[in-house]
Amino acid sequence: MTEGKRQGDNIYQVSTFSALLDGVFEGEVPFSIVKKHGDFGIGTFNKLDGEMLAVDGEFYRLQGDGTIREVKEDEKTPFAAVTFFNPSLTYRIQENGTKEQIEQFISSILPSENLFYSIRITGSFRSMKTRTVSKQEPPYSSMTDVVEEQDVSTFKDCKGTIVGFYTPRYVQGLAVAGYHLHFISEDKQGGGHIFDFEIESGTVEIGEHANLQFVLPKTKEFLEADLMHGKMAEEIEKTEG
Amino acid sequence: MTEGKRQGDNIYQVSTFSALLDGVFEGEVPFSIVKKHGDFGIGTFNKLDGEMLAVDGEFYRLQGDGTIREVKEDEKTPFAAVTFFNPSLTYRIQENGTKEQIEQFISSILPSENLFYSIRITGSFRSMKTRTVSKQEPPYSSMTDVVEEQDVSTFKDCKGTIVGFYTPRYVQGLAVAGYHLHFISEDKQGGGHIFDFEIESGTVEIGEHANLQFVLPKTKEFLEADLMHGKMAEEIEKTEG
Repeated sequence: MTEGKRQGDNIYQVSTFSALLDGVFEGEVPFSIVKKHGDFGIGTFNKLDGEMLAVDGEFYRLQGDGTIREVKEDEKTPFAAVTFFNPSLTYRIQENGTKEQIEQFISSILPSENLFYSIRITGSFRSMKTRTVSKQEPPYSSMTDVVEEQDVSTFKDCKGTIVGFYTPRYVQGLAVAGYHLHFISEDKQGGGHIFDFEIESGTVEIGEHANLQFVLPKTKEFLEADLMHGKMAEEIEKTEG
Repeated sequence: MTEGKRQGDNIYQVSTFSALLDGVFEGEVPFSIVKKHGDFGIGTFNKLDGEMLAVDGEFYRLQGDGTIREVKEDEKTPFAAVTFFNPSLTYRIQENGTKEQIEQFISSILPSENLFYSIRITGSFRSMKTRTVSKQEPPYSSMTDVVEEQDVSTFKDCKGTIVGFYTPRYVQGLAVAGYHLHFISEDKQGGGHIFDFEIESGTVEIGEHANLQFVLPKTKEFLEADLMHGKMAEEIEKTEG
């Protein structure tokens, strides 16, 4: 192992997921900086104004009204995780599978549940159920309250790309343990945070990550956030599905 | 905030504390690399052969037999956390205080319990109780078992330096939540992982950290480790005091 090699498998994360849960919806980091650390990833925007998905160096903003546009350099994020996508495992999916089945399949082939993995699934989907969060105004309530009013869309028979991460359980709260996946349709007309899907066929690509960089905000809201309240695991399940 | 400034407050950590608890006592990272990421910090050595303490760019190995020597470049670590120490807060201690009282005092002045802090306390101690772990041979048992046989020393009326970190509770397991402190005597004749102390007078210096880099091992032992078993918090309390 050399240090140089390790840089290639870096995941760069802004803030913690528990801060988002606690209503810390404004961060200091612009996407001009996020883009320096990856060409692939997921996240959100200040005021929780849309879901972020990055793939092949293109950063998209999946908005609450169902539209998608490119992310501007000066837009900021309260939570994002990115990497330079460099898959080391590739699998073909040739029979129908639900989100649960695909996640179980991926878990069965991951070399270890103790590392981080970037996951891209390109395919044809019989159905895809996503949500997009919408712009909030201060004083912010918790994300758990916000997602009760979220916009949920179901797409039928569409092509598109899933982007996301597998995160080990021992970092629950700091990140989202397990699978955290966003979707964008091939025609760039729809997408969001994934609740459920059924895939018809496609390709799963997986990158392995053992080098993690977390950048915490120094905003008043983050410094004062309750990042360790008792129901965190439940709330992550509730907000992230 | 600029990215440049953020690099200065980086903490670099090798592996996770939960891996050490689970008996992952051999890592791949040599101190030649660790030293590039900091001049200050704590950790241990492969085979759990001694406690590590770094201060002012000097890296020490506090050995199970009570002796101390400098760390060699090619020695490797299964767990270490370092930073370039750059304190932003300094306090004088002018009356006797126990470890618990000093930690409570530090907690009362920390800007937030959600960031990481490096802590150096230079002073005169009425007593200092430390342990040093001793070289293990495979197959390794858990650290909880190892520390039941640890060498505990109590120094009376000594001068020296405490080096360590405050870590937020939301990263328990990945790191050691709360205070994790090592000690070295001024004459470099004794020290180890701190269990307890009583300070007479001294200086507390505190650095603030919002940029965290974790490098996970890709060894078979780490990949297969149980990093999330139920009693982790208890075991950290038991092994770290």
